[in-house]
Amino acid sequence: MAAGCRYGSHRVLEPRGGLPQPARRLDNDMARVYDNEILLDVIALNIDSASFTQLEAEAGHDVDRIAARILAIVAERGKMQNPVTGSGGMLIGRVARVGAALADRGLQVGDKLATLVSLSLTPLRLDRILKVHPDIDRVEVEGQALLFESGLYARLPGDMDEGLALAALDVAGAPAQAAKLVKPGDSVLILGAGGKSGMLVAFEAMRRAGPTGRVVGNVYLEADRDVLRGLGLCHEVVVADATRAMAFLRDALQANGGREYDVVFNCVNVPDTELSSILPARDEGTVYFFSMATNFAKAALGAEGVGKDVTMMVGNGYTRGHAELTLQALRDNPALRRLFEERYV
Amino acid sequence: MAAGCRYGSHRVLEPRGGLPQPARRLDNDMARVYDNEILLDVIALNIDSASFTQLEAEAGHDVDRIAARILAIVAERGKMQNPVTGSGGMLIGRVARVGAALADRGLQVGDKLATLVSLSLTPLRLDRILKVHPDIDRVEVEGQALLFESGLYARLPGDMDEGLALAALDVAGAPAQAAKLVKPGDSVLILGAGGKSGMLVAFEAMRRAGPTGRVVGNVYLEADRDVLRGLGLCHEVVVADATRAMAFLRDALQANGGREYDVVFNCVNVPDTELSSILPARDEGTVYFFSMATNFAKAALGAEGVGKDVTMMVGNGYTRGHAELTLQALRDNPALRRLFEERYV
Repeated sequence: MAAGCRYGSHRVLEPRGGLPQPARRLDNDMARVYDNEILLDVIALNIDSASFTQLEAEAGHDVDRIAARILAIVAERGKMQNPVTGSGGMLIGRVARVGAALADRGLQVGDKLATLVSLSLTPLRLDRILKVHPDIDRVEVEGQALLFESGLYARLPGDMDEGLALAALDVAGAPAQAAKLVKPGDSVLILGAGGKSGMLVAFEAMRRAGPTGRVVGNVYLEADRDVLRGLGLCHEVVVADATRAMAFLRDALQANGGREYDVVFNCVNVPDTELSSILPARDEGTVYFFSMATNFAKAALGAEGVGKDVTMMVGNGYTRGHAELTLQALRDNPALRRLFEERYV
Repeated sequence: MAAGCRYGSHRVLEPRGGLPQPARRLDNDMARVYDNEILLDVIALNIDSASFTQLEAEAGHDVDRIAARILAIVAERGKMQNPVTGSGGMLIGRVARVGAALADRGLQVGDKLATLVSLSLTPLRLDRILKVHPDIDRVEVEGQALLFESGLYARLPGDMDEGLALAALDVAGAPAQAAKLVKPGDSVLILGAGGKSGMLVAFEAMRRAGPTGRVVGNVYLEADRDVLRGLGLCHEVVVADATRAMAFLRDALQANGGREYDVVFNCVNVPDTELSSILPARDEGTVYFFSMATNFAKAALGAEGVGKDVTMMVGNGYTRGHAELTLQALRDNPALRRLFEERYV
């Protein structure tokens, strides 16, 4: 079999010549596997939260109707991309076949993987649905899926609950970027430090900033203050509303002895926090937007409007080694691991 | 007089405690000038293109009605922020007074400045409108405006037509960022190299990449190919539609001997070009989005979907020295300067 496009455009049926994510329909004929594809026997789909919430509402919270809708979407599109939200999720499966061109990946038939690229671009064929778990947005299935040459995945670790690993891998980009950006002695501010990505970023920031640096975590709820402190995830916690920029700036600087920060991470999940990320950063500092609620124009025009010469980065969910780094963070902080197990598994 | 907030929140009347840009109404009482404000006698407003187009349509292209509408907006809001588009523009004025805390700026009463922060956040009082120039979106006025401590401005140069300087200053962030990012030997791709910011970025990229680097400019129109070549703004020109990612990738790589690029600049003015910016970049390369049509989520999810470990930057319209650098580019390339004079003045 020939090699396909490394980004999977050879599987796009509509519109031709495009990429798999924006495509309306993918070729999910698994009888043909290209030399640079990996075929997986699927165990479970982890539907993304926005998509699952929409499916539940549409189906009146009836699991059989949710299952029927998922089967219909995949039959129509060749992938599990919610037509309303546009979003996907990830899947767990076992390697069924590795294309000849990818023999050097060291994968064996039977290896258990989690895909780290969205279901919205993953060719999928469902044979049947075994069980829907609405409490954790998971669907046990029988079927097959394909990973392209560029498709990211992680081997599921043997020392960790599968649900725990998935919860961490879902946000693996953020702590891995923090590990690259934060240097010894840096002062670091994390907006939304009480969430899943925020806590992992805080843990990496503490580790990288070292004893001479300072890590300040911002949370919206008073209750999260003690959680962060108890886990040792930052030197100080600021309880403040990041949508109110001037008051936020005052509180954030006070927590850093009046000095601006070297690096700011935005891990919140609400809009209108761009200026609260930009204002506390020092000139020539870095602002890293991991929040998907970030508005590009508000960030670009916001920095110019306040005359801040800061480097603003778009959160890339992928950086080399991100899965390994994130799973290791949970191994290295047993208390954080317990919290993740309680909250997200 | 006391000092106000460096970002101007002391001038916000509605809602209290916010920043000037999102505010509904600013205090434009120029009888009070704070110690860290600069008072300007305004000569002309350069209304931003989106705003002026809307005003023209609303006024049925009647200049008197446009003038009346501008007076009404400023009377109501204390700033020239178009309530439909939300956008502003910039202004030219002469220094009338410099607050005591800004004495070290070296400004003299009478100095002619262009503001480099948006009119949408600049306190303004209009006494009357002298003339509307619909062909260049300019309005000659009598009135006064304030610059905050954080407010950016540039002295208008004596060796250059005012309109030319304004046209260049309008996009000064882009070439200044290019000057910082591009290193000798880099290969550089510029999407939208035929536009105002694209040409200035190309000029800086050629200068910084040096004789060992390679600069490739992408344009949409065949006619722009010869313009770029004639001006010596890049080593090669690729005529391609950046909204068609797979075809674009093929053409872009072909222009660089099949190799991926170290740095990619996006200077286009249409949506859906995020993947065409990400795919041609090398692993650990940099993608710099200067286009205001950039969608944050499409960039973030796009890079993850294709497994690209690239640094993606949000275009910051400001970086130290951006105005001087951009005006110097026009002095250093007389042919580019002539083209700007023909097209934009």
